[in-house]
Amino acid sequence: MNKEKLINELCIETDSKIVLLIMDGLGDLPVPELTALEAASTPNLDHLAKSGCCGLTDPVLRGVTPGSGPAHLSIFGYDPTKYILGRGILEALGIDVDVEQNDLVARGNFATLKDDKIVDRRAGRISTEKNHSICQKLNKSVQEVENTKISFFTGKEHRFVVKFTAEGLSDHLSDADPQKENKPKVYPKPLSSEAKNTAQIVNKVMDKVTEVLSDEDKANTILLRGFSKFPSIPTMKDLFKLKAAAIANYPMYRGLAKLVGMDVLNVGPEMEDLFDILKKSYTNYNFFYVHVKKTDSYGEDGNFESKKEIIKKTDSFIPAILDLKPEVLVVTSDHSTPCVLKSHSWHPNPFLIYSQTAQVDKVEKFTEKECSQGYLGRFLSLYAMPLMLAHAGKMVKFGA
Amino acid sequence: MNKEKLINELCIETDSKIVLLIMDGLGDLPVPELTALEAASTPNLDHLAKSGCCGLTDPVLRGVTPGSGPAHLSIFGYDPTKYILGRGILEALGIDVDVEQNDLVARGNFATLKDDKIVDRRAGRISTEKNHSICQKLNKSVQEVENTKISFFTGKEHRFVVKFTAEGLSDHLSDADPQKENKPKVYPKPLSSEAKNTAQIVNKVMDKVTEVLSDEDKANTILLRGFSKFPSIPTMKDLFKLKAAAIANYPMYRGLAKLVGMDVLNVGPEMEDLFDILKKSYTNYNFFYVHVKKTDSYGEDGNFESKKEIIKKTDSFIPAILDLKPEVLVVTSDHSTPCVLKSHSWHPNPFLIYSQTAQVDKVEKFTEKECSQGYLGRFLSLYAMPLMLAHAGKMVKFGA
Repeated sequence: MNKEKLINELCIETDSKIVLLIMDGLGDLPVPELTALEAASTPNLDHLAKSGCCGLTDPVLRGVTPGSGPAHLSIFGYDPTKYILGRGILEALGIDVDVEQNDLVARGNFATLKDDKIVDRRAGRISTEKNHSICQKLNKSVQEVENTKISFFTGKEHRFVVKFTAEGLSDHLSDADPQKENKPKVYPKPLSSEAKNTAQIVNKVMDKVTEVLSDEDKANTILLRGFSKFPSIPTMKDLFKLKAAAIANYPMYRGLAKLVGMDVLNVGPEMEDLFDILKKSYTNYNFFYVHVKKTDSYGEDGNFESKKEIIKKTDSFIPAILDLKPEVLVVTSDHSTPCVLKSHSWHPNPFLIYSQTAQVDKVEKFTEKECSQGYLGRFLSLYAMPLMLAHAGKMVKFGA
Repeated sequence: MNKEKLINELCIETDSKIVLLIMDGLGDLPVPELTALEAASTPNLDHLAKSGCCGLTDPVLRGVTPGSGPAHLSIFGYDPTKYILGRGILEALGIDVDVEQNDLVARGNFATLKDDKIVDRRAGRISTEKNHSICQKLNKSVQEVENTKISFFTGKEHRFVVKFTAEGLSDHLSDADPQKENKPKVYPKPLSSEAKNTAQIVNKVMDKVTEVLSDEDKANTILLRGFSKFPSIPTMKDLFKLKAAAIANYPMYRGLAKLVGMDVLNVGPEMEDLFDILKKSYTNYNFFYVHVKKTDSYGEDGNFESKKEIIKKTDSFIPAILDLKPEVLVVTSDHSTPCVLKSHSWHPNPFLIYSQTAQVDKVEKFTEKECSQGYLGRFLSLYAMPLMLAHAGKMVKFGA
């Protein structure tokens, strides 16, 4: 029996509550002697670490730096090497495009075509405002092709997302991108027979777009990559019998939560809003995913001081969570984003579980280094979910 | 190559001896500050921990609470998610029913049938003595149906095991149990075409039993669940080239050992008897599984003091094991049974290996917490077997 099926069969529905607080990109490297987490004042997180049980998690496997998609799937209990999310869907989620079962999405570049060759794959990095006005033009001129609804969504600079809506579309298409400049325009090819019709539709859309943009100076054609449909992922209700809510104020994470069937709650833009909604919706769900984004953003910026401050601020909301008396509180990150690297990394995540049945260890402070000495040892993020479920009394015995 | 095959190919037969001492349910949670193992006086186990190498093991995976079956299979080197034991076979083993290749077993309840409905699924929890006399009656009246030998075995209160013996029986049968009361009687359904004949035989047996029990007040029919045949599991000789003996005085563990092909030695009911037989049979085998049950029983009872005392008593037999000079001595539990939970749990097992080639770590005392700091780290119980084999010089190099 595979492990997913095993865990699925052991899960039972109960009223006990699990709060999973993800501080995105929290894990860090020393700058120069302390990490942002070590340097931050975190009396409340330290209290949890002292009274709970700690460890370190690897999102995929040692050495693999994950994107937000695989990193989150793993900590939600989905094997990220089994459930592969297309680039198109992730790009769409990241700019808050609503994707449903009959939608096909792709990420696009506006590009410059000259003498039948792509001479600039990024159309001179046009401004986001320019991008916006081009998308408006396309949404008026290219609304439907062969009974397929077409919608364009502005991304940053030259980037956009296109959505095709109709029954029976396929994402088995090759990229429509020459990859290098001064090469001819490329059309998507069907990668299986079922995708032939979709390829024809996409080709027509590409030609129509190029026609509509013929008067543009730089952005006079498009490249499309990462065709993806809404992935067929079992929901958290299916897999773990959880009634799950997502409390996140950035589109990518709201989108990821939607993919696994969480209810995505409306929430304001501030950190206060997250914990306010947690309190207000607390009786309606038994699993809460609360997402703090800025630890990652400041890591990406290499801004050590601000990362430290945002950790301190997050710490100040821990008592508000404890007031709700959840059976299980887990605090961790999806992946590390060390300030010195200014990017996601493969370093493990600090992880703490606070619960009546936690086997208290010697860890006294919630830091990367201390967590490495915790009872939980080092484990795959994928096993955070059965661990949370067990501590919440949501799993029965395996075998007799 | 899968890992089972890899290990199998590396194993060689040697005279070196391995003693695996399982203190059932040893792992615990603090009550309120110390676990039973921390509180117990264990000078001999501490000596082993100090001179050997320690770690923590997970029986199945983090968060999963195992029954005795999967927990033991894992520590015997069998992936418990691959070798799934039916409920019927475990129930049969637990009451010392001898199960062979042509046997089909199921666990049963005596139940009360009234106006064609099951009104009590446990027949008012009749006494074990009453159960015994009913089984005797059935063993006289329902001895054979369609060339299939039928035997009934008394369990506790309303529970029993029934064994069907004939060639070609199948265990692909649904449960014959309405699950809820005030529902009609249910017959097993074949879950594959090969089980049709078996289903017919079981149906006839059920009707015949109900007929024979028609004069009973409460226990006038039966429910049957967990149909299972003798599982096809490779022996420890096949897999690890071991000549293995089981020294256990409780039926479930003797049965589990038999499933993996160990010789099950006759042993008296006391702890002394275990170590007496170990000494007497020491020259005849190269692997000894010694099972102490009461650490688990007292954990299940929530009896901290008695658990502590039985740990102390077990400790006192360690010198007797060392006198035999085994190449490898491992002391661990199959799963944890914390006194505060009064049940098996998902918490990891303390694990120690004592051998000439053990890489001595800083652990000074055999406790859950100390083991978490040991050299072996945290690992699946499944890998205890290759570790024992390696330390006993029973595995050759992989590749050149």
